Amino acid sequence: MTAQAATRPHGVYSEVGVLRKVLVCEPGLAHRRLTPTNSDELLFDDVMWVDQARRDHAGFVAELRGRGVEVVELHELLARTLAVPGCVDWLLERKITVDEVGAGLVDDTRAFLGSLEPAELARYLIGGLATSDLPEEFRSEFVALARESTGAREYLMPPLPNTLYTRDTTCWLYGGVTLNPLYWPARHDETLLMKAVYRFHPDFTGATVWWGDPERHWGRATFEGGDVMPVGGGVVLMGMSERTSRQAITQVAAALFRAGAAERVVVAGMPRLRAAMHLDTVFTFVDLDTVTVYPRIVDGVHAFSLYPEDGPTGLRVVDEGQGAFLPTVAAALGLPELRVIETGGDVYASERQQWDSGNNAVAVRPGVVFTYDRNTQTNALLRQAGIEVITIAGGELGRGRGGGHCMTCPLIRDPVTY
Amino acid sequence: MTAQAATRPHGVYSEVGVLRKVLVCEPGLAHRRLTPTNSDELLFDDVMWVDQARRDHAGFVAELRGRGVEVVELHELLARTLAVPGCVDWLLERKITVDEVGAGLVDDTRAFLGSLEPAELARYLIGGLATSDLPEEFRSEFVALARESTGAREYLMPPLPNTLYTRDTTCWLYGGVTLNPLYWPARHDETLLMKAVYRFHPDFTGATVWWGDPERHWGRATFEGGDVMPVGGGVVLMGMSERTSRQAITQVAAALFRAGAAERVVVAGMPRLRAAMHLDTVFTFVDLDTVTVYPRIVDGVHAFSLYPEDGPTGLRVVDEGQGAFLPTVAAALGLPELRVIETGGDVYASERQQWDSGNNAVAVRPGVVFTYDRNTQTNALLRQAGIEVITIAGGELGRGRGGGHCMTCPLIRDPVTY
Amino acid sequence: MTAQAATRPHGVYSEVGVLRKVLVCEPGLAHRRLTPTNSDELLFDDVMWVDQARRDHAGFVAELRGRGVEVVELHELLARTLAVPGCVDWLLERKITVDEVGAGLVDDTRAFLGSLEPAELARYLIGGLATSDLPEEFRSEFVALARESTGAREYLMPPLPNTLYTRDTTCWLYGGVTLNPLYWPARHDETLLMKAVYRFHPDFTGATVWWGDPERHWGRATFEGGDVMPVGGGVVLMGMSERTSRQAITQVAAALFRAGAAERVVVAGMPRLRAAMHLDTVFTFVDLDTVTVYPRIVDGVHAFSLYPEDGPTGLRVVDEGQGAFLPTVAAALGLPELRVIETGGDVYASERQQWDSGNNAVAVRPGVVFTYDRNTQTNALLRQAGIEVITIAGGELGRGRGGGHCMTCPLIRDPVTY
Amino acid sequence: MTAQAATRPHGVYSEVGVLRKVLVCEPGLAHRRLTPTNSDELLFDDVMWVDQARRDHAGFVAELRGRGVEVVELHELLARTLAVPGCVDWLLERKITVDEVGAGLVDDTRAFLGSLEPAELARYLIGGLATSDLPEEFRSEFVALARESTGAREYLMPPLPNTLYTRDTTCWLYGGVTLNPLYWPARHDETLLMKAVYRFHPDFTGATVWWGDPERHWGRATFEGGDVMPVGGGVVLMGMSERTSRQAITQVAAALFRAGAAERVVVAGMPRLRAAMHLDTVFTFVDLDTVTVYPRIVDGVHAFSLYPEDGPTGLRVVDEGQGAFLPTVAAALGLPELRVIETGGDVYASERQQWDSGNNAVAVRPGVVFTYDRNTQTNALLRQAGIEVITIAGGELGRGRGGGHCMTCPLIRDPVTY
Repeated sequence: MTAQAATRPHGVYSEVGVLRKVLVCEPGLAHRRLTPTNSDELLFDDVMWVDQARRDHAGFVAELRGRGVEVVELHELLARTLAVPGCVDWLLERKITVDEVGAGLVDDTRAFLGSLEPAELARYLIGGLATSDLPEEFRSEFVALARESTGAREYLMPPLPNTLYTRDTTCWLYGGVTLNPLYWPARHDETLLMKAVYRFHPDFTGATVWWGDPERHWGRATFEGGDVMPVGGGVVLMGMSERTSRQAITQVAAALFRAGAAERVVVAGMPRLRAAMHLDTVFTFVDLDTVTVYPRIVDGVHAFSLYPEDGPTGLRVVDEGQGAFLPTVAAALGLPELRVIETGGDVYASERQQWDSGNNAVAVRPGVVFTYDRNTQTNALLRQAGIEVITIAGGELGRGRGGGHCMTCPLIRDPVTY
Repeated sequence: MTAQAATRPHGVYSEVGVLRKVLVCEPGLAHRRLTPTNSDELLFDDVMWVDQARRDHAGFVAELRGRGVEVVELHELLARTLAVPGCVDWLLERKITVDEVGAGLVDDTRAFLGSLEPAELARYLIGGLATSDLPEEFRSEFVALARESTGAREYLMPPLPNTLYTRDTTCWLYGGVTLNPLYWPARHDETLLMKAVYRFHPDFTGATVWWGDPERHWGRATFEGGDVMPVGGGVVLMGMSERTSRQAITQVAAALFRAGAAERVVVAGMPRLRAAMHLDTVFTFVDLDTVTVYPRIVDGVHAFSLYPEDGPTGLRVVDEGQGAFLPTVAAALGLPELRVIETGGDVYASERQQWDSGNNAVAVRPGVVFTYDRNTQTNALLRQAGIEVITIAGGELGRGRGGGHCMTCPLIRDPVTY
Repeated sequence: MTAQAATRPHGVYSEVGVLRKVLVCEPGLAHRRLTPTNSDELLFDDVMWVDQARRDHAGFVAELRGRGVEVVELHELLARTLAVPGCVDWLLERKITVDEVGAGLVDDTRAFLGSLEPAELARYLIGGLATSDLPEEFRSEFVALARESTGAREYLMPPLPNTLYTRDTTCWLYGGVTLNPLYWPARHDETLLMKAVYRFHPDFTGATVWWGDPERHWGRATFEGGDVMPVGGGVVLMGMSERTSRQAITQVAAALFRAGAAERVVVAGMPRLRAAMHLDTVFTFVDLDTVTVYPRIVDGVHAFSLYPEDGPTGLRVVDEGQGAFLPTVAAALGLPELRVIETGGDVYASERQQWDSGNNAVAVRPGVVFTYDRNTQTNALLRQAGIEVITIAGGELGRGRGGGHCMTCPLIRDPVTY
Repeated sequence: MTAQAATRPHGVYSEVGVLRKVLVCEPGLAHRRLTPTNSDELLFDDVMWVDQARRDHAGFVAELRGRGVEVVELHELLARTLAVPGCVDWLLERKITVDEVGAGLVDDTRAFLGSLEPAELARYLIGGLATSDLPEEFRSEFVALARESTGAREYLMPPLPNTLYTRDTTCWLYGGVTLNPLYWPARHDETLLMKAVYRFHPDFTGATVWWGDPERHWGRATFEGGDVMPVGGGVVLMGMSERTSRQAITQVAAALFRAGAAERVVVAGMPRLRAAMHLDTVFTFVDLDTVTVYPRIVDGVHAFSLYPEDGPTGLRVVDEGQGAFLPTVAAALGLPELRVIETGGDVYASERQQWDSGNNAVAVRPGVVFTYDRNTQTNALLRQAGIEVITIAGGELGRGRGGGHCMTCPLIRDPVTY
């Protein structure tokens, strides 16, 4: 099956069809940089025991592979990409600039990074390069200035711990991909690494890019995969949240419509709550017609639909109204209604479990999903509903507020039929 | 004197020489948008009584004019600039894009803004354009999406209340100017407005731009005028702070050296404290050899000097050490030492007065400065030292944490001799 | 009239009847202790220019007196109280204990404070006593320990800047008073000072105390006057908020019913929002049947009524429902409905004005109120409705988030007839 | 050994002598109440997977027992205490008062709680009683008022999740115990439960109480066991921190000196940093002369010594100076110096490990300690130094920022000889 997947073109045609190939990123150096002082700036709620997180992530990957999924790991993928002639120069020209490292440090930093093996270079590109990592022979007097700088600026390349959540950075929507401008500056550089992959790695070159380019600035048009679900039937769900803006949603919708790749985008206008960071933190599919939902937030979603239209924008907007999200999704899929499994437990437990990514399931085929072990009550409800639940150890991985759905970027997933 | 100033080229040759022409920006619509909910995001500590702030600002301007300073106000300057053919189109093409307002709103928003008189358009460019400001005839169904968006994104153009602090956005350093990439996204658009002025307004076209261009993205190279002081004698002081990075400092220094416009940059490595936002919040000149200083922070500054050098960077760095800032500045000016007037009062009062911009003086000539009225103890010490202190009513203007130095961008200031 | 008031017993019989005598507290030493570092802990949003705040407060007092109100100032009242034999000992025994100042500092601190004139002692009791205030001859080696302590603990007596809001500490409800246990520890000692007044000052001894005693600990039963309004007709309104708990409300209601002092308590269950600290921040009376209201919060109030009943609690509860507050108040007063004047201006302006105490009016007689000058739009609406509005300069006084209603504790107010 | 311990009187004579009997408290209902919304108020940084935390805690207890320690669990201890005649009434009279639950709910709540079996009652006393826990037959109309209350006030008895840290609530110092007034109101009720144990449980009655009584209010005299270490030789170390004040330290020292129970108290004046909550978060003993230390904080400690003296306070203070803590402790124990094992790893790792309780070791005998598994680098350094390290699974237990030292209250520990 793995060999077969490798030769089949990338494309994601549903949220629950058979998952054939997926991109993940194991915890590592970037998470070793997290401290109580800098974790907020790097978007983590707490520090992580990295060795344990690596073991737990390896367990997750092993289970995915055990289910027949081809798993691509970002450090390895990037290392193989860096081995392609021209890639190191292309990337360092874009990463190690006077704007990013300051005058006086560009040449030394490029020289040091250029001297590394691909795997080691990939480790620094994801894990960040502190001034203290620069060997003595590459240190000019300009390093002293860098030492006095604050926070993320003390890095010559900032750590990218949120690469753990591969879901957000790029999205396969049917037969093409988006290279997403992410909301927080701390995550911008993730997309550049992925562009290198799509430009240089032989398995990825030639992909159709619907939208997005990390080499230009997108202003308020930000887009994160946690808000995006290609549910099949030419429909895409998009959460309009703090992180995913209408400025981006309307552009992506127009691009998909123009290419004939989608026929309808259902927009979930999320309430302004911190717990509802992305659509997939409160709503994911677990079977063809079944979703797990945190009702206290999903009931407040304001739904809109975007359809193709002739004219300058290529779009028209239909306001579906407050609270109409679930019926609108059902109708878009041609279903009479969705089967809904709510976050389990009493008022305390359900709030805790949503927070701990209890609704953030990722399916490997219809009715078979991965979730964190800790959300036992929600998992029990899923199982009672006939869903097979495979658990991921979430004690460490969950500390950045993301679960199985967030940690996976499907590259090949089959369609389903409604 | 006003007529004379207008024909004399712009240029700032000291911190305390005769101030001939200055740019300010009166409070207005942007500050009427501030609420307890959004003020943090817009970098204000509290809401402001705008009508009173306007009266206080008018008083400040009148005093400046009474001292022979030609005062240019940004709303008026921008309105005159917008009247120049081509300017409205140039600016709206850059402000009203699909990235900023979203598909479906570009044409209507441009059409509405294009229909306005220059003064009204200037008011919205600085004050922001809410979706609710769009008249009925310019509202498509896409406005509904915008209404659901959060925070600053509900605006079609965000309000720019920090234009009040004209000091930060552009800096005249001797005979040329920098167009600064500001640290917070909430302030980025300020520099674009200033670029329009320098491109279209006849009094400003042809200026030498040392560095900076708001049409490109500068990454971690951020630069704010509150950290920058052209003290004369080819020396420039630059605070390296949260907002002004070595990535920018080294670039600006290299550009100045390359043009022969400066011979030394003294870098003040600021401690990592919120109260020390900019160098001018803890250190300003009040006379040829006299500074007002908040010692609890200035004593912790780590000083460096940058000098021109042949070679790729055009720079060399000398580490002056921790606590050496005041002696280094004195030496750079050829003075045996600086006369230092500290923030007045006991431990409580001095902390309060630094917070209330007590050290943020702006001179109109050697020994004559403007400060806020509320810092009575620091003002008394200045007066006892022979400085003439003219007070600004600071009850409202001070709520964004900036004083007279922050609210003024000198356009023409005479040199002094040491 | 002043002479007459002095001999008339204290008592408050309405919110808008003729105000004859009132307690205020001018800003002073306590506010000079506020710094950006400690202001949060002391419940202030920003530091204050104390000299200007004193001038503004003096203006407020002069206007009150000009309207025939006898104004008692807390520093003066306390100084006169301290001159009564026995009072200094009584108070210092309770304030300067080993629990509050630590072993080794009790005797010296008491000796120093005991050596002071009453006015000076009153100034420290309200303004706080820092270890640095202790003269050399009263300093043992234990002062070194105190110097190392953090925050409010560096004080031998903590500053009480919230005494500015005399409304909260004690409440005259018809013919008796409550000595309130305040919510924040930073305010507990305020009530002890008031107990000294009621125990020793000849004008205040003999008052009927309905409830409350600062010499015992009240746990979760906390009560603040900003939530309490004796509106007349045997009715009292009580906001159930973060600061005023049902544990206290039910006790005070039972005490009032037991004494026959009230017949109904209308409880306003406040939504859980920071802006709605007290009932009087969103709802105050300005005329017999007229209130100023911030609708976005008042519309969410859940109203209950408490009535006397035989039985162990002496109370019964009637649930009036969500949103029923205004009709319930009207009915309790025998009015068909209340005339409602909402916070003025657009969505931004009304949020700003509520924040700036725009709805926090205090009446000196029906239809004549004091409010801050800055809330011009709300003030204009009040005036259009025929209310006479006298303004208080709020630039400094408003920074602790309290207005005219908060800064006044009525001691004698006439009833009104409905 | 267990039987022997039971008959031997309680008493703790060192930090590293043989630990014979210890009090712990397993996670449970109180932690099931923690949500992202209320965890701050209840002093937890994040929610916890309670079932896993219970398993991890059971593992810790099993290891303790495996080392011959008699382990007493608080729920069980409290249940046995409640079975003693008179205890339930005594406790409910103090817990279920009109101040705590409000008028109208006292009788019903007491009746419900009085109807429970001891184990169930103990579960609610520690875990809290929500209004929704009250069965229908015990619910009057007053419950509606409680439902509208905010935060912890919605509880009739608040949850006490910090009982997990038994170290803080009571301290055995040589032959007697202190019943500590804890800093945060959220923890006050913990000490009352312990007073019930010492008053009613036959194994605990008759203990000598040096200081403290939860039935009275202690003002600023707060004291937490995490700051207190009876290191032997008549010496006690006390951290003077946010939570443990000089007001309490001086009282406890005087009480110990008066009873002849100690000869010297070494006070560690902690720097004002959130990470340094208690002395035992940065400094614990792991062997007779060996400590594990987080140097970035301990190096900033200002040390004082308190000695007995005739006179009113019974104390004198010696200022040992900034940075003198480790030498002062060594000298107090008669050692030339302490062997110091610092937090392991680079600048990032050591900050992370201190945060994750890496220095919070608890010894079961000299050279044998328990620590969390996650601090692998610090654990490795301890092992290299010859210390036997037994690990506790800390993925869940550590989320409240406390380790093995915090989770144990020694009841019997042998002296050591220096």
